[in-house]
Amino acid sequence: MRNFTCDYTEGAHPLILQRLIDTNLSQEPGYGEDRFCASAKDRIRKAIGRPEADVFFLSGGTQTNATVIDAILRPGEGVIAAATGHIAVHEAGAIETSGHKVLALEQKEGKLSAPVLESWLKNFYADMAWEHMVAPGMVYISLPTEYGTLYSKAELMALKAVCASYDLPLFVDGARLGYALASPACDITLEELALVCDVFYIGGTKVGALCGEAVVFPAGNAPKGFFTTIKRHGALLAKGRLLGIQFDTLFTDGLYLSIAQNAIDRAMEVKELFRSKGIQFFLDSPTNQQFPVLSDAQIEYLSGKVAFEIWEKLPGGRTVTRFATSWATGADSVAELGGILNAMP
Amino acid sequence: MRNFTCDYTEGAHPLILQRLIDTNLSQEPGYGEDRFCASAKDRIRKAIGRPEADVFFLSGGTQTNATVIDAILRPGEGVIAAATGHIAVHEAGAIETSGHKVLALEQKEGKLSAPVLESWLKNFYADMAWEHMVAPGMVYISLPTEYGTLYSKAELMALKAVCASYDLPLFVDGARLGYALASPACDITLEELALVCDVFYIGGTKVGALCGEAVVFPAGNAPKGFFTTIKRHGALLAKGRLLGIQFDTLFTDGLYLSIAQNAIDRAMEVKELFRSKGIQFFLDSPTNQQFPVLSDAQIEYLSGKVAFEIWEKLPGGRTVTRFATSWATGADSVAELGGILNAMP
Amino acid sequence: MRNFTCDYTEGAHPLILQRLIDTNLSQEPGYGEDRFCASAKDRIRKAIGRPEADVFFLSGGTQTNATVIDAILRPGEGVIAAATGHIAVHEAGAIETSGHKVLALEQKEGKLSAPVLESWLKNFYADMAWEHMVAPGMVYISLPTEYGTLYSKAELMALKAVCASYDLPLFVDGARLGYALASPACDITLEELALVCDVFYIGGTKVGALCGEAVVFPAGNAPKGFFTTIKRHGALLAKGRLLGIQFDTLFTDGLYLSIAQNAIDRAMEVKELFRSKGIQFFLDSPTNQQFPVLSDAQIEYLSGKVAFEIWEKLPGGRTVTRFATSWATGADSVAELGGILNAMP
Amino acid sequence: MRNFTCDYTEGAHPLILQRLIDTNLSQEPGYGEDRFCASAKDRIRKAIGRPEADVFFLSGGTQTNATVIDAILRPGEGVIAAATGHIAVHEAGAIETSGHKVLALEQKEGKLSAPVLESWLKNFYADMAWEHMVAPGMVYISLPTEYGTLYSKAELMALKAVCASYDLPLFVDGARLGYALASPACDITLEELALVCDVFYIGGTKVGALCGEAVVFPAGNAPKGFFTTIKRHGALLAKGRLLGIQFDTLFTDGLYLSIAQNAIDRAMEVKELFRSKGIQFFLDSPTNQQFPVLSDAQIEYLSGKVAFEIWEKLPGGRTVTRFATSWATGADSVAELGGILNAMP
Repeated sequence: MRNFTCDYTEGAHPLILQRLIDTNLSQEPGYGEDRFCASAKDRIRKAIGRPEADVFFLSGGTQTNATVIDAILRPGEGVIAAATGHIAVHEAGAIETSGHKVLALEQKEGKLSAPVLESWLKNFYADMAWEHMVAPGMVYISLPTEYGTLYSKAELMALKAVCASYDLPLFVDGARLGYALASPACDITLEELALVCDVFYIGGTKVGALCGEAVVFPAGNAPKGFFTTIKRHGALLAKGRLLGIQFDTLFTDGLYLSIAQNAIDRAMEVKELFRSKGIQFFLDSPTNQQFPVLSDAQIEYLSGKVAFEIWEKLPGGRTVTRFATSWATGADSVAELGGILNAMP
Repeated sequence: MRNFTCDYTEGAHPLILQRLIDTNLSQEPGYGEDRFCASAKDRIRKAIGRPEADVFFLSGGTQTNATVIDAILRPGEGVIAAATGHIAVHEAGAIETSGHKVLALEQKEGKLSAPVLESWLKNFYADMAWEHMVAPGMVYISLPTEYGTLYSKAELMALKAVCASYDLPLFVDGARLGYALASPACDITLEELALVCDVFYIGGTKVGALCGEAVVFPAGNAPKGFFTTIKRHGALLAKGRLLGIQFDTLFTDGLYLSIAQNAIDRAMEVKELFRSKGIQFFLDSPTNQQFPVLSDAQIEYLSGKVAFEIWEKLPGGRTVTRFATSWATGADSVAELGGILNAMP
Repeated sequence: MRNFTCDYTEGAHPLILQRLIDTNLSQEPGYGEDRFCASAKDRIRKAIGRPEADVFFLSGGTQTNATVIDAILRPGEGVIAAATGHIAVHEAGAIETSGHKVLALEQKEGKLSAPVLESWLKNFYADMAWEHMVAPGMVYISLPTEYGTLYSKAELMALKAVCASYDLPLFVDGARLGYALASPACDITLEELALVCDVFYIGGTKVGALCGEAVVFPAGNAPKGFFTTIKRHGALLAKGRLLGIQFDTLFTDGLYLSIAQNAIDRAMEVKELFRSKGIQFFLDSPTNQQFPVLSDAQIEYLSGKVAFEIWEKLPGGRTVTRFATSWATGADSVAELGGILNAMP
Repeated sequence: MRNFTCDYTEGAHPLILQRLIDTNLSQEPGYGEDRFCASAKDRIRKAIGRPEADVFFLSGGTQTNATVIDAILRPGEGVIAAATGHIAVHEAGAIETSGHKVLALEQKEGKLSAPVLESWLKNFYADMAWEHMVAPGMVYISLPTEYGTLYSKAELMALKAVCASYDLPLFVDGARLGYALASPACDITLEELALVCDVFYIGGTKVGALCGEAVVFPAGNAPKGFFTTIKRHGALLAKGRLLGIQFDTLFTDGLYLSIAQNAIDRAMEVKELFRSKGIQFFLDSPTNQQFPVLSDAQIEYLSGKVAFEIWEKLPGGRTVTRFATSWATGADSVAELGGILNAMP
């Protein structure tokens, strides 16, 4: 049965595995001091056009969010996020474990808007008791969002402007960054993203790697002691080479974007399959996650024929589902899904 | 130049890499729900003779120590460790980050003894102000220790008896557990270890894996919500298969112990090389880490010819060094070291 | 100018000050081991009809909330509260500092309802990803609420029933508990409250004391090591006598309730003053905080004549204000306010 | 029975109680915004000769240590202290609760010396793995120490010089500061102390107040958001006036030093009483805590006649005891002790 539940159902891109084999017996120092990490960092610096950038490799997304946020905030400060943001919902308390409140703001299709942010900040500081509350210390957004949607360049710059006027660093969670950049709807490049935010990460786990995320401080603005912070959060692999080799491979010959492109192409085909059956979507996602709204009968029909995720029950008996593609989704998988949908009563 | 600085200079055992390739396109659920993790857990349960054991896979050692300790202790309680214990020295504050003090006790050759533990506990509770101090909530030891030494079965049982009388769980850090079990000086089996402690972990990173540690609660005694605790600590890989595949391979056909045996055999050869040159050791290590004490002239001679670690300066101008072997150390490496040592003036 | 901004504008009830003087040179042990604390605890146990209760005195409200919550929850668990609850809004991150998320639920007039709670819990555990989220570990409510409203006995028992079915302790923040119990609208007694919740506190700071809150675990169910937890949170006064003397006085001859009664009587007079001028209230509060909704002109008129608090701007140019009375509010103060209101154009 | 167990056995200096009565019905804003706090801050600024100083009032010592340390350190950093320092031993984990390790260094008579500090720091940064360890972020000392001893001006300046060269703020815990300043052995003034450290606190609880400590950042160098940090730590009293009134009184007409002088005078008399009986001391304390070393027979004789504290058992059957005086110790108490000692066989 084909599996569209998420974008981490397979292992790694074959070129990564091959590279692990080719380099396996090379003796390297630990903790990211190896030559593969050095090369991967250089390639990422080139890809974003910032030779001064600080780059670090961490083992997973929750860890990366917790580590970056803990490193940037002062004790007791909070991090602003859309109410649907990953750190607000699905980090199991990793942010609070460091003592930080997630200040969850109103969102639309997974996105935080500059006017909502500005209004919230204005109201916060207008409250005479604000010093008795958790003060915001940074802003977190995800690109693409948890709903597959994208911020436009204009939206990002507007957010950045608000952040700047309140002296709040802007952090972009790019767990699926490749699937944003490869989307035809995306009007921002990696270089531009590096200009608009203070820190972001390039997701590996969901875009072809076995594990690993690359944190980038574009202006060489990593907080003091960030290496130790990574270690303290348990996010530092002894065999840092595992992350270095993967990102070095992903950033060689444009592999990262080209395999992300596959996911987008397949996702658009999946979208068209549902659309042609007259099925509507919860929202219009231009990336690798598609959210068709299905009836109970449709869900029953599909179950056992194809794997997908139940996302959210809607009032009135309909259900939002998620079908995700990835770097690994083949044309054959989409074809099989097409056959199943075509035969759906 | 041959590198003896540590036991994580290479990648993974080739059988692990081959297995990653063979399984790469199998579509699996995330977060450790895959069939490889299930199989690996079964193999570990069989290896320790405890079908009821709870087994979890985490990505690294610091994380594992922080997660297990945080899950077991009540807020504010402390963890007792030898003053040289990894959590007391080299975790960058990961334990304190969860609010727990490391109660560092006197050690000998890296080991905590039952009499020292008992005496400390007796004095602690004899202090009228003990409720104003950090109460001990568990005991941590490492096997082998950070100095390569081993606890005998009798020593472990004595520690366990003290722990039991104070109702303190005993946690064994087995980051290098294979190198303990494979040593001829080790008089305890994996099954017996599982009987003597409340929780332990089987180190993968330093014994042939790319990353990963297997936490075992032998009596099925994992704390409530341990899965969420792992996630909260950022220790849960989305592609849990990466850990499952590695441990499934390591626990197939005795691979874990057989590759650990290689490290021990090579270490004993290295020990003999130094001994035959009349060089003394900081202590008598029966495992894969050897600590020859060298003069400045010897260090100067060796530098540039072989890589090793400077461990500790001794009074009087001599230096403790560390030469570590691993599953990957070949006979040729030892031979080359032998040649270098033979030619040493 | 008379000050109605809050219920802690004066010092302490004169009987408390007199008692401090009378006992001043008595030499007593520290940290709550003095005979005044012992006596106060006995009086509180009698007042709630639970000789087995555990009673502790802490220095302030934020501290009490943070300490109790930290003592009850397991690491990483969250505390459910109304979105307007003090811990959700005005504790400056004290709860998150212990690593706990405040799970803010929909509220009505400051109150959390049993159906809202039950529905949230049902949905939480129905989510397949709940183990990736912060699990609820207890429920927090305030009595009276931050809006002066009261839970009825039936509402409390309904909440308790939901809590019990999910094995969640129920914690009642009684920072202003006296002002609930003294209200004619209150249909629950202190004894009954002690039956319906797992832990609560009797507020001193806002009801006649200089400082201090009495935490009560009615069933003698204080978590293990709670004394040390208090100390660890900095909530343990060396001169515990300061708290013991105050609560001993407050619980002698019904002083606590009788001075609370004064606040309620004055508040009802204040309410009537506004009502008779045709001024409406944000909600109908039966306790010592009243929330008249005023026009800009009315606020301008009152400013400089009487002190009160701006609570919240409403859409359309009107403003919720707060007028609070206390144990110390005299009939003369209310009379003066009456004169000012009568002259208001 | 006279009680010499500690310096917080009585209530408050009578002038403080009188002042509480005199000001009781004055209506004041909360949280330290009252005019008594303002006046007390001014008096303290004058007493240290630093009009630019930031002054805050907190309710107790553990809280003050935890709050100041948490505000100054970056997440994960540690605080250096003598191994006998209060934060290293008797804070019940309050420092670790904020995620900070106490780096306990070798001490002599309760004191940390500049050479010990410098040597430790040099070794720390010489360790190639220092980024894997908890980095020091500040230095904590107590004046007087937990053993009643004093740092000389020269010793303090030497410590400060080491701190400065490593960019570490120096924090002086002055829980008993009055008893240092009033000692004839003290060669530093309050003004000079304010020059030599980055932050210190003036203890009230043990020097005549019911509760309260005054934190001073002499150069107006309070960390950003310190008010909120105090609140977050539960160290902010709603009725801040309670602290303001006490410190305003203590710093009027030199009351703080004059009542501390009484403790010193009585302590010197107590010291002479023991000395004249040929009894030796654990160390030579020039402040209000005296540590006579007694035999079992002497302890048995004294028990039931006078209250004192058992400090520490020495090898060989002798016991260190503590006799403390305070602002409240009368000549009659010392005379009674004298009689008891004279009659001791």
